[in-house]
Amino acid sequence: MDQFHMPPSPGARARRAGRHIYDLLRSQIADGTLSAGAQVPSTRALAADLGVSRTTVTAAYEQLAAEGFLATSVGRVARVASPLAAPASPDAQPKRQSTSAPTLSDFGRRVSAADMPGLAPAEPCRIDFLYGAVATRDFPALAWRRAYQAELLRHQRRLSYAAPEGEASLRRSLQGYLRRARGLACDAEQILVVHGSQQAIDLCARLLLNAGDAFVFEEPGYLMARRCFEATGAEALAIPVDAQGLNTAMLPTDDRTRLAYVTPSHQFPLGGVLPIGRRLELLRWARTHRAWVIEDDYDGEFRYGQRPIDALQSIDTDGRAIYIGTFSKALSPQLRLGYLVLPPELVPVFRQAKRLADRHAPVLEQRVLASLIDSGAYERHVRRTRRAHERRRAALLDAMARHLLSSATVIGAAAGLHVVLWLPFLRPQDEPSLVAAVRAKGVGVYAVSPLFAGPPLRAQPRPAGLILGYASLSVEEIDQGMRVLAEVIAERV
Amino acid sequence: MDQFHMPPSPGARARRAGRHIYDLLRSQIADGTLSAGAQVPSTRALAADLGVSRTTVTAAYEQLAAEGFLATSVGRVARVASPLAAPASPDAQPKRQSTSAPTLSDFGRRVSAADMPGLAPAEPCRIDFLYGAVATRDFPALAWRRAYQAELLRHQRRLSYAAPEGEASLRRSLQGYLRRARGLACDAEQILVVHGSQQAIDLCARLLLNAGDAFVFEEPGYLMARRCFEATGAEALAIPVDAQGLNTAMLPTDDRTRLAYVTPSHQFPLGGVLPIGRRLELLRWARTHRAWVIEDDYDGEFRYGQRPIDALQSIDTDGRAIYIGTFSKALSPQLRLGYLVLPPELVPVFRQAKRLADRHAPVLEQRVLASLIDSGAYERHVRRTRRAHERRRAALLDAMARHLLSSATVIGAAAGLHVVLWLPFLRPQDEPSLVAAVRAKGVGVYAVSPLFAGPPLRAQPRPAGLILGYASLSVEEIDQGMRVLAEVIAERV
Repeated sequence: MDQFHMPPSPGARARRAGRHIYDLLRSQIADGTLSAGAQVPSTRALAADLGVSRTTVTAAYEQLAAEGFLATSVGRVARVASPLAAPASPDAQPKRQSTSAPTLSDFGRRVSAADMPGLAPAEPCRIDFLYGAVATRDFPALAWRRAYQAELLRHQRRLSYAAPEGEASLRRSLQGYLRRARGLACDAEQILVVHGSQQAIDLCARLLLNAGDAFVFEEPGYLMARRCFEATGAEALAIPVDAQGLNTAMLPTDDRTRLAYVTPSHQFPLGGVLPIGRRLELLRWARTHRAWVIEDDYDGEFRYGQRPIDALQSIDTDGRAIYIGTFSKALSPQLRLGYLVLPPELVPVFRQAKRLADRHAPVLEQRVLASLIDSGAYERHVRRTRRAHERRRAALLDAMARHLLSSATVIGAAAGLHVVLWLPFLRPQDEPSLVAAVRAKGVGVYAVSPLFAGPPLRAQPRPAGLILGYASLSVEEIDQGMRVLAEVIAERV
Repeated sequence: MDQFHMPPSPGARARRAGRHIYDLLRSQIADGTLSAGAQVPSTRALAADLGVSRTTVTAAYEQLAAEGFLATSVGRVARVASPLAAPASPDAQPKRQSTSAPTLSDFGRRVSAADMPGLAPAEPCRIDFLYGAVATRDFPALAWRRAYQAELLRHQRRLSYAAPEGEASLRRSLQGYLRRARGLACDAEQILVVHGSQQAIDLCARLLLNAGDAFVFEEPGYLMARRCFEATGAEALAIPVDAQGLNTAMLPTDDRTRLAYVTPSHQFPLGGVLPIGRRLELLRWARTHRAWVIEDDYDGEFRYGQRPIDALQSIDTDGRAIYIGTFSKALSPQLRLGYLVLPPELVPVFRQAKRLADRHAPVLEQRVLASLIDSGAYERHVRRTRRAHERRRAALLDAMARHLLSSATVIGAAAGLHVVLWLPFLRPQDEPSLVAAVRAKGVGVYAVSPLFAGPPLRAQPRPAGLILGYASLSVEEIDQGMRVLAEVIAERV
């Protein structure tokens, strides 16, 4: 199938010599030693001088001629061709920063100025409650590798660009999976495979928002989505969430509003589940205001004790709900695979935009996923992982109960891979020093305040809070980490 | 490492029963059989009626309560909660197309209206000269699989989101590769790994162009790039290309021009190599007009007889050239991996935009590529593939010489994976029927006229032309395909 592991080509020495000749002449043209019209040594003479074959010199000259540095013709000595000031060698002169640099687009300027959430440090702390990370040992490496190998060896007539909507096999598998797992009835044609939920959000932002529009956003909410919508030049209308998620009584009547972004299965970060009344109110609002509803089902698979709540999309009878799903939580955020379920009328434009954005998602990985879903392996994996997360969650709640003050409140624990811990005896401005003190002891915890991007329509006083992701940790690490957190908090009360 | 291949969970029957109870009650609420405030049967009674355990019924009720359909409290019979009109079941009522649908953004409307190139048919013809496809047997499957497996098993402390610029190991490997193979001196910090060259183009479009701006584009040129730039609302200034690529004497003085997109190593599709004089003129123009130059080096590795021509970026001393590279030609277009080499001042905003667009490229595939480059396997593979393409190219030129009329002219054969065949005895408007007649005999060839997207600054009369990609075909297929093409042409002269 391939011929790797050959010895280096025997012509390597000649090529190196040729490269040196090329570099030599080019730098002499660049620094003026050889000026326009000047003769260069004959190939015979230079070959003799340098102790290389004449073929090597000829190849170097032909290269310089092909690039326009030399003018050659049969039987005549080559001359320096360029009538233009030749450039300096890139080695001799590092790039200068331009003083009159071209400008960025409006989008570029907004992106440049955006206040983005910090990136996770490359070296995690000893025990890191980083939200969004999952455990390496949870990844089904053996099954993935088997399926990957099978797909790699499966015959394909040729390797060509594929369809923007994604592999038909994966869209069919997902259709069945979504019906079984999320109560979501759709046609495989409505599914668009993308590079993770972030790309799904970005496509929605680009296709549905103009500068000057407005969008409804949960407060607090998922900052990477908010920044993406804001980068279009649209304005966030921040609606406070309560224990039941987005407070739909506060939905705006602002005519500029084009869409609402919600996390109805498990509000990010506070964990509320949007009840049916609010779901219907949200859809009714969307109808009245001709707005789209984007449902980010980022961790809908992971609900403990009860079956996961059906997707909001499943009660949308008007084709206004856009569903976003991801494999980042159930498999790995490093895969960069997710999908949209689109109202039929949006299917053509989303496919076209996906094609312009990056043509399509990688083919092999899509087929691997399809085969894992079809064989039942994916759903067994999700169930197994759910049990593992349930143990982690129990360990977290247990450790909090044992180590932390009783006035600390945990919310959002019924689902997902994180909780929010409110600390009523501290103020939001105490969060950074608390986080730093805990980190100094090797434990990573994260402040909740940055997720309140405001300004909310109605500000409410709130205590300090932490967001704690537990999906990448062992039961022991969770207990140890909570003990450290409790110690640091105890010093501050 | 994983626990796949377990038997189905023993609770599956109970879950199915629970699902039926849930569906039953939910549809009764939806159709009004159970109205707001109505009592539902006690869990004990319903369990007895249906012959299921009380636990199963209780779970279904709790699910309905969690979703807001039922109001429950300890020791009391549950009642229907929602004071709102409950929705119809998604099964009973298919989605309606909305009559007053929300609108698309300006970008969405432009994308929707864009005249996109056709997608390759899923089933290729018997012998398909499709440009952009590569041969499955050329892919280094064994080396790829080994490296993939090694990276899959390599210890990672956890699976978390990675940096938007791409893996440090791959950027270091690429830096060395670009120096060796493309004469391009850059810092690893200037490299941004993306989902193929299409995403590189899209990021440039978004960050550098506003609606109402203009951009210089080769005529004919790469339509997927042109459409991407046009989707921003900017206008293409189409500059004719000749045998030496972009005619830089015709560069516009239009103040709206923000960038020029060029393929200097091997103009797409006509194959000219931009000589040093034009390269310098282009860069000087960019300086004078405060414009960026985007160099799409889509097949720069594949030059026959001579070393590949150094990148335009290597003579840019002002930090205005943006280099785009891809693995689509040397490995597979289905991988969706490519990269940008950016002027230092653009690095932060491109990283931020990549993060908002889809966070980062998949981690495992990047590490596999890095290990193949570091081991030398990648460059051996490129050399081996270059020899294979050289044989295909020779077969194509030979078959054309033997079968085709002498008045047909082949251009662009010195490099790349395609040629353009001019047929001076036919007019451009004859192309579609010629292509169809050849396809009817099982051979895919492609008209060149759609790549003239115009209107060019100065239109020139031209004959019919075909673009013929040969990278996915065997020497025998190439000969057979050319024979068929020659037969069909002979019938038409």
